[in-house]
Parts: sequence; structure tokens; C-alpha cells
Amino acid sequence: MPRAVLFQETGGPEVLTIEEVPDEAPGAGEVKLRVLAFGLNRSECQLRAGTYPMMAAVFPSRIGREACGIVEAVGAGVEGIAAGDWVTTIPNVVEVQRYGVYGDMAIVPAGAVAPWPDGLSATEATAVWQQYLTAYGPLVAYGKVGKGDVVLITAATSSVGHGCIELAKAAGATTIATTRDRAKRDDLTASGADHVIVTSEEDLVARVLEITGGGGARVVLDPIAGPGIAALADAAAQGGEIYLYGQLDRTTTPFPLIPLLRKGLTIRGYTLWEIVLDRMKLNAAKSHILGLLGSGAIRPRIDRVFSLEEIVEAHRYMESNRQNGKIVVAVDPAANERRKP
Amino acid sequence: MPRAVLFQETGGPEVLTIEEVPDEAPGAGEVKLRVLAFGLNRSECQLRAGTYPMMAAVFPSRIGREACGIVEAVGAGVEGIAAGDWVTTIPNVVEVQRYGVYGDMAIVPAGAVAPWPDGLSATEATAVWQQYLTAYGPLVAYGKVGKGDVVLITAATSSVGHGCIELAKAAGATTIATTRDRAKRDDLTASGADHVIVTSEEDLVARVLEITGGGGARVVLDPIAGPGIAALADAAAQGGEIYLYGQLDRTTTPFPLIPLLRKGLTIRGYTLWEIVLDRMKLNAAKSHILGLLGSGAIRPRIDRVFSLEEIVEAHRYMESNRQNGKIVVAVDPAANERRKP
Repeated sequence: MPRAVLFQETGGPEVLTIEEVPDEAPGAGEVKLRVLAFGLNRSECQLRAGTYPMMAAVFPSRIGREACGIVEAVGAGVEGIAAGDWVTTIPNVVEVQRYGVYGDMAIVPAGAVAPWPDGLSATEATAVWQQYLTAYGPLVAYGKVGKGDVVLITAATSSVGHGCIELAKAAGATTIATTRDRAKRDDLTASGADHVIVTSEEDLVARVLEITGGGGARVVLDPIAGPGIAALADAAAQGGEIYLYGQLDRTTTPFPLIPLLRKGLTIRGYTLWEIVLDRMKLNAAKSHILGLLGSGAIRPRIDRVFSLEEIVEAHRYMESNRQNGKIVVAVDPAANERRKP
Repeated sequence: MPRAVLFQETGGPEVLTIEEVPDEAPGAGEVKLRVLAFGLNRSECQLRAGTYPMMAAVFPSRIGREACGIVEAVGAGVEGIAAGDWVTTIPNVVEVQRYGVYGDMAIVPAGAVAPWPDGLSATEATAVWQQYLTAYGPLVAYGKVGKGDVVLITAATSSVGHGCIELAKAAGATTIATTRDRAKRDDLTASGADHVIVTSEEDLVARVLEITGGGGARVVLDPIAGPGIAALADAAAQGGEIYLYGQLDRTTTPFPLIPLLRKGLTIRGYTLWEIVLDRMKLNAAKSHILGLLGSGAIRPRIDRVFSLEEIVEAHRYMESNRQNGKIVVAVDPAANERRKP
């Protein structure tokens, strides 16, 4: 019998349990995968905890949207995907209670299935879509970042933060990454950050203005919200764009009205949903990302790999904010070496 | 000796005084006008009161940016403008302490001088630029409003509100205008508002959703800020754009984080400065507006005309919020009938 991670109530990491589940065949439009590895995302911690702003869990619920694996079977009407294919999944699934991928077997809608990028191991292949697709929206589709632009990336040690640094660098921009933890400075530099601001020790606004010769950052990517917004507005350039894509700080966010008016700033709420639920945008994004992976311009950074049995510990680790890159669960113990044949 | 409106300190309307000033010749790059009429704008009340978010007055100060008149003389290096020309002024002057136009004579930079639109009286000609240029940015340059779009315009009885209704209608959009005062409903309808919401009596969000079949407004134009922002975010469509162009409500503005994230909303601070200080944008905007005036698609709506001697009363009237359209001061008592020869 397949094993899946389930939760029956919201709460701490311990609400996640590994259960045997019925070995179903895929229904119409569905694809069944043998999961080799899956990636963890912050939104899954929030869904589990009941704090995800976009939706609430429906119990009993599976969890997880980002996996790689080998197709076991396809349901009626599925074209272009066949048993034996090595594939990844795009995090575009709304009905996660049924389609969650944490486990050794998963059933997902065919529209969630994407290519396994050439040359990536299973632990890397499961770490592609959430981070680069999230970065793609503000940096490429909307912000149209290019040479000469300065991009400020907060909470930069998350997997999405790394994805933002890499995509901004690939576009020719100058990147400023922030972290609270001075120990992560060198890792961020290694990931391509041109400048690192340790916010627990340095004045963010002063440093950004110093780095930019007083001009400020044209594009800001922030998953935190909360009181830090005031400094981001002060650090933004005239006509700057602040993309808010999360709410890690759950205290009240002030409205930076005066800099907004004085500098003609844009603050835009953004979630990955607007890319992954729009077929045209998604296709453009996938092509862009596969191209950059193929050329070696970007490569997922894996922080730590857990086993399936360690899922509670893996969630706990994500919530400790000690990571620097992607947290992956290797369902296949050899996932680090498994490559598409 | 010319007479000009001056103020020596911030305060209520009574700080404005009419003083005789030296009859100067225009300097290099300057144009001297005999003023026939000038328009009042909210930002001038704020500058006078010391609450203008964009800048503070430098005393002693002239005041006002929007006038029409006849060129008396031009300074060195001014081309394309000659004594005897009937002209208007664009509100693009930063050094208002010297270049303010409230008075019977004004000196302005040549870059502030614009054509007098054909067929408009002096009271109308002085009421063109602030309202239509302000509306142009969010509706045309940025929001690219067109057929099928729903535009929500708050505080719609101001001159800029009227300009927004007219420009949105000219672009083919459906317009929803708000006012606190039910007595102004018919006037807004007469100005082209497809729907009017009286916010003192009706639920703004419920009405917008009802009018739009649940979809919300794609573009929102708001000069108020303050707590009302929450309702505007709830009334905005998925992917909607809220342009904040003022701060009439000086209480704290809450940050509508959840609708911002859920709907991928954009909130953009906007002031007319970004159009009028950018030559390319300004030229495009002027052509657009002169074209619509020429075809009769738009026409300034004059609320009330004061004499120069009534300047204190005119400011007091603007701050009473009783107006519905443009407040003009006719320096020439026959300004209503004066037309470019």
C-alpha cells in the first residue's frame, strides 16, 4: 500500500502523520506518480498551521505540491504523458487534500505535470518550480528586470529568495539580498548576491541608498510584510515596485503613504497562483526557466535532505528559519544520485 | 503695479493676502502673463495649510499653478511664444513661491506654457490641465483603460473627479462615481457617471459588486486614502489597480494585505508630477487631451467663479467640500465670455 503524509487538524508539525492509503488508479485527466523526492514550501507550513492566507485545509488532507517521480499510470484523456516518464510537478494544484504529493505515491492532475529538467538529480528536480516560477512573475513577467536595475530581495535565504537572486542575476540586474543572520552572508554571496545586508546589524535603508548612490532599488521582492514595509518603501527608487508575496510577519503592516505618493511607488500583492493558473503565463515561464537551467545560468540550491519518516522534523526545521536553500524529502534514499535515464 | 496673492505663513484661508508686487520683466526662459483667470486646486489649500505631502512652502510665497492669460513679454531664449499669445499654464512649476499664478500678473517658466484650447472661455481654459492631466496618468498612460473596464472614482465631485469620469467615459469604460452627498448624485450622472454611490447611505463594496456582477472594479482612482482603502481593496477586481493620488483623509491608512495577496492587487501612489515633469509623457498627455477637447468628448465643468478679491472665500469654499466641478477665480470680470480671438 502507498504511504502518504496526512493531517486531520491544523497545528504544529506533529499533526503530520504517515499513513497507508488505498492504492487507487488515476481517474480521468489524472496521472499517478511513484514519488522519488518532494520539496517543502512555506505555504505548506502555513496550510498545516491554519495561517495560509489563500485557503484553508479540508480534512482529512494530503499536503504538498512539488515532487518529482516516475509515471506509474495515466487516466483517461491524458495525452503526452506515459507510464515510465520521469517528470516533475508544477505547484498549481488547488485541491491539495486529494492531490498532495508528500508520500511515496501521488495522483496529480495532468496539468500539474512538467518535464524533468536535463541533468538534474531527483533532489534538484523537485526544487525547480516553486522557487523559479515565484521569482519569474515579479522579475520577468511584471518587473521586466534587466541590466542596470537594482533588485532588493528580503528573506533571501529561502528557496524562493535564492531563486530570485539567480533569476535577477541571469537578467543582468544588481542584487541586494537581506538576511537576519550574519552567518548566512557568505552563502548568499555564493548564490550570486552582489550585496548582502544583515538586517539584525545594519540599517537596511542606509545600506541600500549607499549601494545605489542614493537612487534606491527599482524592484523589491518581499515575502515578509509587517512593519518592515516602511523601510522597503524608503529604500525603493522613484517609481519603484514592491512585490509582496507573503506574510511571514503576522503583525500589522503599516501603509507607507507618504513615500508611496512622493515616489510614485507601486505595491503589488503577488502569489504564484497568478502564474501557474494561467496557461499562457505558465508556458512562457516554463520555457524561460528550462532555458536558464539548460544553459547552466541557474541551478537549484539544496539546503538539507530529509527522509519521508522525518517529515515532522523537516517541517520543524523549515519553521526554525535555519535553512539556506531548498528543503527536500528524499522518498527514494538514492534521490541525490537518481537522474532521468 | 501688479497684484498677487501671497502668504507669509501656513494657516487657514485668511493667511492669503492680495499685495502689490514689483512689475518685473521676465528673466531668461520666463514668460510674463496678464492673467485672465486662474483655477483652484486642493494641493494649493494643502500647501497653504502646511499639509501638502509633496513639499513645504518657502516664505514669502506666491501660490497657484493653473491660469490662462495673454502673454505680455517673454524673456531671453524663449522660442515659440510671443507677446499677445493667448495661453494656459500647465501645473508643472516646483518653485511656486516665485511662479505662483494667483494674481493679475504672473511670471512662469516657458515650459509651463501650453496652448489655449479652441472654443473655451477663459474660465474653462484655466480648468483644463490639472484635472485632465491628473486623470490621464492612471487611466490612459498606466491603467490603459478601455471598453469593458469598470473604473471606480472616489470623491468624484472634485474637478479631478469630473476629469476622471470624462476621460474614462471617452475611453469606453463604465464609470462608478462616489460622493458623500446625495444632493450631488444627479450632477455626477450629468457628468457621465454610469453609476453613483452615495457613500453616506450605501455600502460601497456591495454596490460595486452588484454593479459588476461580483467582478469588482479593474481600476480605482482615490484621492482620499485613510480607512476607506479597505473597502476599495474589497471592491477591486482580481488583478485590480488602485491609484492613490492624495490624502484627503489624514487619519491612518490601513494596509489591505489579505485582499492584496488574494487578488494580486496593485496599489500605486500617483501624483501629477510624474506626468508634468516628464517631457515625453507630458507631450503625449497634452495631445490626447487637446484631441478630446477638440472633438467635444470632454469639457471642463465649472462649479463657481470668484473674483480676485474673494480669494480667501474661494479657498474657504473649496475646503467646505460643497463644490461639484472646478472653482475658478476670474481676474478679468468678463472671463466667462473671454475667448481666444
